[in-house]
Amino acid sequence: MSPRTAEAAAVEQAHQAFYDAVERSDLEALEGLVLTGPLAETVSVVHPGWPVLRGRREVMRSYALIMANTEYIQFFLTDVEVAVDGDTALVTCTENILTGGPAEEDGSAGSLVGGLVVATNVFRRTSGGWRLWVHHGSPVMAEGVEEGDDGDDGESI
Amino acid sequence: MSPRTAEAAAVEQAHQAFYDAVERSDLEALEGLVLTGPLAETVSVVHPGWPVLRGRREVMRSYALIMANTEYIQFFLTDVEVAVDGDTALVTCTENILTGGPAEEDGSAGSLVGGLVVATNVFRRTSGGWRLWVHHGSPVMAEGVEEGDDGDDGESI
Repeated sequence: MSPRTAEAAAVEQAHQAFYDAVERSDLEALEGLVLTGPLAETVSVVHPGWPVLRGRREVMRSYALIMANTEYIQFFLTDVEVAVDGDTALVTCTENILTGGPAEEDGSAGSLVGGLVVATNVFRRTSGGWRLWVHHGSPVMAEGVEEGDDGDDGESI
Repeated sequence: MSPRTAEAAAVEQAHQAFYDAVERSDLEALEGLVLTGPLAETVSVVHPGWPVLRGRREVMRSYALIMANTEYIQFFLTDVEVAVDGDTALVTCTENILTGGPAEEDGSAGSLVGGLVVATNVFRRTSGGWRLWVHHGSPVMAEGVEEGDDGDDGESI
């Protein structure tokens, strides 16, 4: 592997570890992947439909909240593109998300819901490896669906 | 001004110039603000509700399309937060957007529509100044409005 390829592979590994931690509801693992140090107060995350969360503390609190309110979540990542320049790495991807709703009253599993989100993730190189600095996820609307477009029954996803 | 403050001010100026160019439908000015060079193919932009656009050429094409289809757009930026580290700068903000619909059939101006978008912008330092590497905008949904939440008549913005 060339140094450049090895670098991109290390970034992709950190990127995958980030999604794995959310999938497993492993807040401790996630804490180890989010940037600490001088830039900790500038860590910024946007969950789909949310305003900007800024600072490591607020970001971790949001993940704790999401984990507490999510029965089941699975990410199938596609279109993963990695760019590394110096100590900064950019990863964009599509998150094909499968989430489980809360359990039914009779105790059976809740219904599964699919969703399509695109994400921009920026990592910084640290002595301990690549750490997440920025995450921005947003819902992808179905193509060609516009307000007032009554020739199409499609719904936004 | 301390060097650090001067640096943040230069980033904020590039950031404002980016929004000004879109507001003025000035594609040429925008071209001068988007990163060129070795990272040009990795420039990435997400417009609200869109998938990821990657590469300078595709990004510029999308702005040309947006400008051609937008009669009027104005950004009131709030919550602008700048973080600079080495050759990378992160800016997050809220875009309070006012857009004008297409003109009415009788020739009068189209109706104005407001929208709330949050944006994550990443700039890279070049010999010519700070240049946009990453832009991700996404709609902010009204708080507390969830599918199946029939106790609330609020609408997503």
